[in-house]
Amino acid sequence: MNQEDCFLDNCPPFEDRSVDRIKLSEGSGGQEMHRLIHWIQKMLPPSTNWNNTQDDAATIPFPSTHNESENNHLVFTTDSYVVTPLFFPGGNIGTLAFCGTINDLVVMGAEPLGISLGMILEEGLPRTHLESVIQTIGALSQKYHVPIVTGDTKVMERKSIDKMVLNTSGVGHAARVLNTPLRVGDDIIVSGSIGEHGAALLAKRFDIDSSLETDSQPLLDEMRAVRQNIKQARDITRGGLVGVLHELARKNNIGMQLSEEQIPIRREVQHLTELLGIDPLSLACEGRMVCACSPDNTPAVVSALKKFNDSANVIGRVTQKEGLFLQTSFGNKIIPEPSGVLTPRIC
Amino acid sequence: MNQEDCFLDNCPPFEDRSVDRIKLSEGSGGQEMHRLIHWIQKMLPPSTNWNNTQDDAATIPFPSTHNESENNHLVFTTDSYVVTPLFFPGGNIGTLAFCGTINDLVVMGAEPLGISLGMILEEGLPRTHLESVIQTIGALSQKYHVPIVTGDTKVMERKSIDKMVLNTSGVGHAARVLNTPLRVGDDIIVSGSIGEHGAALLAKRFDIDSSLETDSQPLLDEMRAVRQNIKQARDITRGGLVGVLHELARKNNIGMQLSEEQIPIRREVQHLTELLGIDPLSLACEGRMVCACSPDNTPAVVSALKKFNDSANVIGRVTQKEGLFLQTSFGNKIIPEPSGVLTPRIC
Repeated sequence: MNQEDCFLDNCPPFEDRSVDRIKLSEGSGGQEMHRLIHWIQKMLPPSTNWNNTQDDAATIPFPSTHNESENNHLVFTTDSYVVTPLFFPGGNIGTLAFCGTINDLVVMGAEPLGISLGMILEEGLPRTHLESVIQTIGALSQKYHVPIVTGDTKVMERKSIDKMVLNTSGVGHAARVLNTPLRVGDDIIVSGSIGEHGAALLAKRFDIDSSLETDSQPLLDEMRAVRQNIKQARDITRGGLVGVLHELARKNNIGMQLSEEQIPIRREVQHLTELLGIDPLSLACEGRMVCACSPDNTPAVVSALKKFNDSANVIGRVTQKEGLFLQTSFGNKIIPEPSGVLTPRIC
Repeated sequence: MNQEDCFLDNCPPFEDRSVDRIKLSEGSGGQEMHRLIHWIQKMLPPSTNWNNTQDDAATIPFPSTHNESENNHLVFTTDSYVVTPLFFPGGNIGTLAFCGTINDLVVMGAEPLGISLGMILEEGLPRTHLESVIQTIGALSQKYHVPIVTGDTKVMERKSIDKMVLNTSGVGHAARVLNTPLRVGDDIIVSGSIGEHGAALLAKRFDIDSSLETDSQPLLDEMRAVRQNIKQARDITRGGLVGVLHELARKNNIGMQLSEEQIPIRREVQHLTELLGIDPLSLACEGRMVCACSPDNTPAVVSALKKFNDSANVIGRVTQKEGLFLQTSFGNKIIPEPSGVLTPRIC
């Protein structure tokens, strides 16, 4: 993989004794996770002619017997899902597994061709649980015309795994990969209100009365509507909006100036996160994305996105100055990358 | 997926109470696993223009802007690995994850383009364990020129998962998919002696002194050498040789007559399986395959395979009569499909 220009290149590789065991925070979408991934990538040989291997999906010009210069890219992604509880308001682990992998494909500009379904089940899992999850995936597959084309099933002994883990990988086809470098002045746009997935999970886990439901949904139609007018997109998952914006900033070597009042957050999410002392900007979604475009295209992009979700909005712009800054009613503050274990296993 | 012609179509779908929870045997590569997979597939919508969705990898003619009739197929597969112990004679879980996915691609006639690496780690896993596994995968990736192009890392709380589970998915490119129907009289050929992976794992698990090592290896060079001369191939994994032959027979609506004395089994494997009362024909490999070809091509195929492994051999032929039959020194006996939990978590 491309190891150049990585902000972590000078990190000491876990030399002190306190890091000799894997920590929960290394799976949480923040600094620790990026450090772990970077350490892993440094042990693997470079991936030759594949691109975007630092993104959520890798791309390769598809081998063609005709014309090597043809714009014809294969897009490939993978994700595992370890959510607890398996069933939550508005969906289940199957909803996440389908939406998460579709979204990783579409934010690269791809049309999904098919996804795989790997299931790791605990011996003794009620068959009705599996049935509900499969039916959910089947209904989404039918609705969005993305077939489940290959799969794998493993069963582990009781207590060797907590109920059920899913892995979905996906392949897609992109005529144009969304990878245009961001420039100072580009607008940053969010496709809808953030944090509902994470908040709904937390409400359920802490048994808090709430009408919140997961925001999980495939962003297929949204991306089809805007992809010709945007430079890059990223779906908001672990690490939340802030995590994803840090990834975009790092990849493009740019900074961002954001405006708190422009970031759409539903009142219930705001209340719940205040109650729990959690930053809603770090809360996972599974049906929202951020994208960046040149200001000329902003009106078209926002109006296209608003047809799907009224709260789509411009939340900031690309700046020369590195770092993420948030204009609040108390002034302009820097937003560090999330770290630690904020919310284990919500996606 | 293609549900027609499936031998399980008339199975009652788990209607009695004794099957209301997932059983360990449903992950073991035998009858119960096929029944579970069939039940899952019936809940999913058909996968439209994908083929071979009943095999270990699915294929699709790759969308081309030029010429739809071009022989240009995308091949896509997924597998999860749940082996215990993580480290065993001759390899570790990373060896399996790399070889298993490469082999699922190459037996369909594909050249691997890249694989994904999904890791689900237990909080507290020693970092050196992860390091060894990644280094193993990295070395194989380099040796066989198949890059790891995308990945995902999740960490589950202590005791929510047993140490480490891997998922590798793979994409490949096939000019010709190996899917020619088998005919009566075709030869069945095995690429080397069977059962060493399973036997090495069992020896380690039962603390039996043995020089056995896993047979895990990518079958890339073997398949390149024979693919133009064979009709179909399948790598031998869960369910062992017998499991794989039953899958081939069912897919092609044919039977097979096998000869016990032609099946290569190393003396140590024979001894160990006799000691444990296990059938070596049901024992998993991760570096062996069976293939079928017209008798005209048999000499070329066997001699090509023998360059890699001296014990490659013709082990039987395709018959009209359904079922698998094994000629032994005690007569010709029918071989049923494996069932029950033979060896949990050896791949």
